[in-house]
Amino acid sequence: MNISYQPELLFVDGRFHQHYALEVSSDGTIVSVGPIAQSRTEASIHKLPGRALLPGMIDIHSHSFQRALRGKAESRRRSGPDFWSWRNIMYRCALALTPEEIYDVARMAFLEMALAGITTVGEFHYLHRTPTGSPYDDPNLLAKQVIRAADSVGIRIVLLRCAYVRSGFELSPDPGQIRFLELDAEKFLRDADTLRNEIAAMPATVTFGLAPHSVRAVPREYLRTISSWAHSHALPLHMHVAEQPAEIDACIAEYTLTPFHLLDQLGLLTPDFTAIHAIHLQPGEIERMALGKITVGACPTTERNLGDGILCADELIDAGVSIALGTDSHTQTDALENARELESNLRLRHLQRAVLDGRQGEPLPALLFDFATRSGARSLHVDTGTLEPGKPADFFTIDLSDCAIAGSLPEELLTNIVFSMSPGAIRDVAVAGKLIVNHSQHPQQVEIIEAFRCVQQRLGAEL
Amino acid sequence: MNISYQPELLFVDGRFHQHYALEVSSDGTIVSVGPIAQSRTEASIHKLPGRALLPGMIDIHSHSFQRALRGKAESRRRSGPDFWSWRNIMYRCALALTPEEIYDVARMAFLEMALAGITTVGEFHYLHRTPTGSPYDDPNLLAKQVIRAADSVGIRIVLLRCAYVRSGFELSPDPGQIRFLELDAEKFLRDADTLRNEIAAMPATVTFGLAPHSVRAVPREYLRTISSWAHSHALPLHMHVAEQPAEIDACIAEYTLTPFHLLDQLGLLTPDFTAIHAIHLQPGEIERMALGKITVGACPTTERNLGDGILCADELIDAGVSIALGTDSHTQTDALENARELESNLRLRHLQRAVLDGRQGEPLPALLFDFATRSGARSLHVDTGTLEPGKPADFFTIDLSDCAIAGSLPEELLTNIVFSMSPGAIRDVAVAGKLIVNHSQHPQQVEIIEAFRCVQQRLGAEL
Repeated sequence: MNISYQPELLFVDGRFHQHYALEVSSDGTIVSVGPIAQSRTEASIHKLPGRALLPGMIDIHSHSFQRALRGKAESRRRSGPDFWSWRNIMYRCALALTPEEIYDVARMAFLEMALAGITTVGEFHYLHRTPTGSPYDDPNLLAKQVIRAADSVGIRIVLLRCAYVRSGFELSPDPGQIRFLELDAEKFLRDADTLRNEIAAMPATVTFGLAPHSVRAVPREYLRTISSWAHSHALPLHMHVAEQPAEIDACIAEYTLTPFHLLDQLGLLTPDFTAIHAIHLQPGEIERMALGKITVGACPTTERNLGDGILCADELIDAGVSIALGTDSHTQTDALENARELESNLRLRHLQRAVLDGRQGEPLPALLFDFATRSGARSLHVDTGTLEPGKPADFFTIDLSDCAIAGSLPEELLTNIVFSMSPGAIRDVAVAGKLIVNHSQHPQQVEIIEAFRCVQQRLGAEL
Repeated sequence: MNISYQPELLFVDGRFHQHYALEVSSDGTIVSVGPIAQSRTEASIHKLPGRALLPGMIDIHSHSFQRALRGKAESRRRSGPDFWSWRNIMYRCALALTPEEIYDVARMAFLEMALAGITTVGEFHYLHRTPTGSPYDDPNLLAKQVIRAADSVGIRIVLLRCAYVRSGFELSPDPGQIRFLELDAEKFLRDADTLRNEIAAMPATVTFGLAPHSVRAVPREYLRTISSWAHSHALPLHMHVAEQPAEIDACIAEYTLTPFHLLDQLGLLTPDFTAIHAIHLQPGEIERMALGKITVGACPTTERNLGDGILCADELIDAGVSIALGTDSHTQTDALENARELESNLRLRHLQRAVLDGRQGEPLPALLFDFATRSGARSLHVDTGTLEPGKPADFFTIDLSDCAIAGSLPEELLTNIVFSMSPGAIRDVAVAGKLIVNHSQHPQQVEIIEAFRCVQQRLGAEL
């Protein structure tokens, strides 16, 4: 039987409606969204008084294993003065985890995401090998641990299988990267294709994409080979680009091209492409990104933590580049804090207010909420991010009596959600019609936390 | 009878301890903090399993009436492109509120603070007159509405009575400021002294200080008069300084001195002085601030919202200037987000990590948590911010199973609280030994929200 969710307020077409229902079929598909119809009798009614219901948020960039690093990398002694020294402790974390621990840590990351209203994760997955660099019998073992974790929590996942070949142009191999490496592009594609086929047989909440790590880690011909394979399968293609200034210099030294000019030359800049970070942009690059209709994957809570810099979201939006959001290193799991930082970092840079307001013809809160939903769906090739008939019912509800938003006028509610609310206000979360969080509780929460605690105990404070 | 609070973890002397108790007398004073003593029998035991207990956070800079503005000022149409245009809608908000509404809105602000673990608020109060500019029969009516709101919620308040004289150097009067004005310094001090004496007869959770609004709004001789009165009573003295670049230019034009050089000349830079914002600093100013041992009151969540800019907290700390934190305009009520922004804004500016780590000899999370507690107590002349015998028992507890911090090693817990936790993890809050929040609920929450909703309805969307 269908279920008719009847919240106090329902967010459709960019605003909140009263007396609306979201009807969901037993297979988790949205049947209808609109005014509550008196005559319908075949649906079981699920009233949600005091709740607003919104489309689930989409986190396009996660390295779930890095959840184990939280708390271990906020001092100079442990993780040094910058991004590059931070990488070393991150590599030690990557080397330390067993396959079962990778599952436990991913579950913790996905549990926290679910509780924060995130219903889809794009997992940029680069752990493939054993800690000594030998292959597992199944070259996709660790990818499948992460998928299994998502399935256990109930969150939708797009597994972006990552290619990592080298430390960088004229750099000797870094032993910290040994679990990531696949030197041969053909072998990489065979393994990727195997995983792609296995995922095709899994539930619809699991899909597949490709992720050449970066211009630094994947040389040009390898990149050409794997990206043309991705294009031939119409896969989402994600890549770290221009996170740190040193990457730009290295790219120019190797190719006499800036990163986005190189990617353009290779034909990568298409609507299937998402450039993660894209912070340190060079002259002429925004035009190329816009022409290719790519997405930029911004991760402000991580970018501030890693000292990456501030995205020029204003220029990107004006050029017509789509922006989606990711939590990345899981230092904070708050999709709305991510959204508001895009705007507030620009206020700090320009000493102006409402910098993004009205761009693309959208009011500021609607624009920022779109980044957390609709743009993410486009980036990951998932059919969610809005509540429309025929789409999967991925949504979350918030408690309208939460102090950050209580008493808001309806026309101010989205503003207050985007600028002032924290994840504690989120109550129910559904993926493909299945309620995975009820009253801010996940049924496996205690067990997931206990397994994560054991991993933390084993890792200890010194990685 | 005394109460012995026995949480799973208790934060004393910069770290978490197991098997510790906080014993509080019936008058709300801390009697002892230390290992649980088996022999004590006279205390009633209040076990807090699964909780960590920390000293209450101190918010040194609040304009509680601006809580009514949340959601109304995040678009160019309503509030323009910058701080100065935002002031206009803020003024309209100030003009719109009745005395009873000022109480209702302040209660909402203080309720949200209490639920976020804030136990003391420094209320920088500048509403004194009726909307037509005439005095109320009681010139402290509105200040007492705010005090009454704090008392109703149970939060400790330092009422900083604000002096506001003019729009600025060579500027004509702004009708939006008409409720703030007191043109005569002697009259201002008579009213302030009346309030000071009335507060002296109130409970110990209410204290008093003075707040000349800014160099712009208070001319030099007026400032000299009221600050020497404040010094004679050893009052905390708070003032907005260097929030926006235009203020610096105006100060130099009027006095041929930068703001801090002017304040130094007037003898204001003492340990009793807190400079709110202090963002746009000029050569030689940090040395003066340090010599005077002043506090800087940083309000990062508001400063990013208003496009004020980034505080050079690194240089201030190195010079020995104390930093405390405020929520200011109440766009977000999250003292820990305030703390982490101090650090993360510097990471964005310098493209470095752990910028403040080790400064003043403190690890980064301890330093940031000190800003939210100990430094605030110093700024406001309150005897809280740490848990020590003889001090008032102001504290909060957090749920150790909250997903942001669950499974943390004890030595990583404070890092995760400061960098990753949101207010939803806060469970119990006590002020002077009285539990004002229990299991994340305040007993008057429903009533406070309902009154606030009525104010929002009456104000409407267009101020």
